[in-house]
Amino acid sequence: MQTITTRELKERLSELQGQEVSLQGWIRSHRKQKEIGFIDFYDGTCFKNPQVVYDNGIANFQEISALHNGAAISVTGEVVPSYKDPETPEIKAHTITLEGDCPEDYPLQPKRHSVEFLREIAYLRPRTRLFQAVFRVRSVASMAIHTYFQDRGYVYVHTPLITANDAEGAGNTFTVTTLPQGVKADPSEDFFGKATSLAVTGQLEGETFAMAFSRIYTFGPTFRAENSNTKTHAAEFWMIEPEIAFCDIHQLMDIEEDFLKYLVKTVLEKCPDELAFLDKFTGGGLLDKLNSLAESRCARITHDEAITILREANRDGRFQFEPKYGEDTAKEHEKYLTEEYFHGPVFVYDWPKDIKAFYMYQNDDGKTVAAVDLLVPGSGELMGGSQREDRYDRLCARMDELGISKEQMDWYVNLRRFGGCTHAGFGMGFERLLMYLTGVDNIRDVIPYPRTPRECEF
Amino acid sequence: MQTITTRELKERLSELQGQEVSLQGWIRSHRKQKEIGFIDFYDGTCFKNPQVVYDNGIANFQEISALHNGAAISVTGEVVPSYKDPETPEIKAHTITLEGDCPEDYPLQPKRHSVEFLREIAYLRPRTRLFQAVFRVRSVASMAIHTYFQDRGYVYVHTPLITANDAEGAGNTFTVTTLPQGVKADPSEDFFGKATSLAVTGQLEGETFAMAFSRIYTFGPTFRAENSNTKTHAAEFWMIEPEIAFCDIHQLMDIEEDFLKYLVKTVLEKCPDELAFLDKFTGGGLLDKLNSLAESRCARITHDEAITILREANRDGRFQFEPKYGEDTAKEHEKYLTEEYFHGPVFVYDWPKDIKAFYMYQNDDGKTVAAVDLLVPGSGELMGGSQREDRYDRLCARMDELGISKEQMDWYVNLRRFGGCTHAGFGMGFERLLMYLTGVDNIRDVIPYPRTPRECEF
Repeated sequence: MQTITTRELKERLSELQGQEVSLQGWIRSHRKQKEIGFIDFYDGTCFKNPQVVYDNGIANFQEISALHNGAAISVTGEVVPSYKDPETPEIKAHTITLEGDCPEDYPLQPKRHSVEFLREIAYLRPRTRLFQAVFRVRSVASMAIHTYFQDRGYVYVHTPLITANDAEGAGNTFTVTTLPQGVKADPSEDFFGKATSLAVTGQLEGETFAMAFSRIYTFGPTFRAENSNTKTHAAEFWMIEPEIAFCDIHQLMDIEEDFLKYLVKTVLEKCPDELAFLDKFTGGGLLDKLNSLAESRCARITHDEAITILREANRDGRFQFEPKYGEDTAKEHEKYLTEEYFHGPVFVYDWPKDIKAFYMYQNDDGKTVAAVDLLVPGSGELMGGSQREDRYDRLCARMDELGISKEQMDWYVNLRRFGGCTHAGFGMGFERLLMYLTGVDNIRDVIPYPRTPRECEF
Repeated sequence: MQTITTRELKERLSELQGQEVSLQGWIRSHRKQKEIGFIDFYDGTCFKNPQVVYDNGIANFQEISALHNGAAISVTGEVVPSYKDPETPEIKAHTITLEGDCPEDYPLQPKRHSVEFLREIAYLRPRTRLFQAVFRVRSVASMAIHTYFQDRGYVYVHTPLITANDAEGAGNTFTVTTLPQGVKADPSEDFFGKATSLAVTGQLEGETFAMAFSRIYTFGPTFRAENSNTKTHAAEFWMIEPEIAFCDIHQLMDIEEDFLKYLVKTVLEKCPDELAFLDKFTGGGLLDKLNSLAESRCARITHDEAITILREANRDGRFQFEPKYGEDTAKEHEKYLTEEYFHGPVFVYDWPKDIKAFYMYQNDDGKTVAAVDLLVPGSGELMGGSQREDRYDRLCARMDELGISKEQMDWYVNLRRFGGCTHAGFGMGFERLLMYLTGVDNIRDVIPYPRTPRECEF
């Protein structure tokens, strides 16, 4: 007799037919008749749940019949052919042992609860079908990210989360302190002897490692104290930031495209049941979108070209915001480009320098920088990257123009003096990717315990 | 002509003999003669560096001869048999192009710098042999952790870093706030509407996911605002915290042992050159220690048995601290058990309950809890775990005894009401593991940018 998981049961189903196995898990739902009972059983290792059938031949029939949804049980029985469908395993139970019961007022019942209600019981929601799917995709996608980079010789770098750099002068950072609140104190008295905050990016530290290992990636948490209550903003989220030496913006686009397709293909391959469920749950279209992305070639246009296309499209005044050369694009513009014009993902590169960061490579036209955004249908911007300014003088001049202290970041600037080279990198918000992969439209539903303004539960 | 990395060069060395290849990287050291030059070349993808040889047949011989250590170059040339040793690739250069020079006062020179000096230039130290080895081991070990758990059906969970729980009442936490410093304000005015801090563990949230997916693991940053300036404490470090449903303390030890051996074997297999270097650098013994651990069986004794052994050994008064039943052990005790008595790793389990956490399973003796520490030669405690108290009444009683609020953590306590089951988990500090794997004795030298009291640079 073997104790196995439901995943093993599914994977070895034909081999295990007729054999005695033991399983441990929970009752998702329980249908009882006079002399027989049916348990929709899960242990969370597999999206496809077996059915456990028992009859009054088992010793504790009355006790088991009385079990509620949510109870933990151990089951021993024979793997038998399924009545329902050949892919759903069925167990004819010989013994069922109660591990832990669950009261009748258990908040999760076998009906469709609203995602808003489930957020209030976030510690129980991973037990539901929806979140079993979402959080397994999160885990599988995480692993795919590591596998992609490690297989290609990238070194994984843990950049610091507590920092004394206000890197991009972004402002919206969380202060980290051990000083008592409300008491006047000098930053020199704080834990680190200076004012510190939570990092908004690991890119700059990542660059220092790319100048040593050629190819590196980060995958870690990032924090923004932005007071926006939208479906796409969280105060704490995970980012992936690869950085590649001897790489220009066009090679960077090759990598981004290859990486994204790899992730989509891996999740399609490893989570077919989860994605089929999510496809239905989110109203259809998810699988089509992902399969199509895996096959399509990403278009590549400059920002100028994008504006020309958008202005042409705007002859009928379809946009609320007028597309303008030298200015940022709006969500409606991105939507048009991906969903109506290219019918697929599109890289927009060479952006106006005034709306982009100081470290981006300054193009010869004097107006643009070698930045690139990847826009995808349904989600807008999924990745943002750039070739970095590797010319010492040009970088210093730009920092001066923008009033960014070279002294505080001398280590970063020095990378351009000590064996600098053409290099590039991009950042991808992990939750943005997950919303794209699962079709779930609220960032709160792809994070185990979301942190948003005025929300920090569990 | 192919552009390849030095890793590809090493892996495909015999196949590439006589072929023209292109490489991009940096000059580690440069020996120049009148008509010939030798470059110790690296790109960070491989610990074994090729030698690039050029002579005055190349067009820009004078320019190249003048390059300093640290300069970035592109090299095209033929792969030729090596003079030095058959495993060190050699390139006979046809063209060498300068990508970025490096001044003569470059802080890294081809000599042994002290680790203290290198910490001051932490942004350059990954370019040195020592830190190329350490940070590649860090990356390879990270991947091994993910591979181990994912291959065995564990779900990777990102537990929150910002929290309103002061989980273990540990005290030493960093406050996270957006309120201006030194101004009296109510916590309800803060970003999250309450007082928040950086998490010291993800275990409790991890348990909620284990009750849904059976097997989960976390791997993420953790923070302690402990003002201790030792070689083993950092304010920001990474932890691995697996949690397993339907698992007791003895099964937990099986998993811990299997996991640790897997990590050691994987790093031995994937980083042979790095470990050989570290073995020498740290004075020898590292490889012996790791090979021996991979083969040895971890001893398992109760805390009572450990004290008996220690008291026996202390007949000659060898210990500074007397070993006592019912009390914690000291570092010297752990050292004796692993290095002198068992000559290998040892699990010590069933610890006195008063020195352990509230959530640990209370044994029938009324005195101990089902906690287990794994002690290893040279490093002391490497993992700490326990079977969790899954009995609702016992958990509540213990929380009451210790004055821990059940109301604030009702979600955690409720796991015992809603289909609770025997479960267990452990935590491993990633940097402790790395110090064990690399032989490096200061935690500051296994973290890219360490954060310790009064130190938060870069």
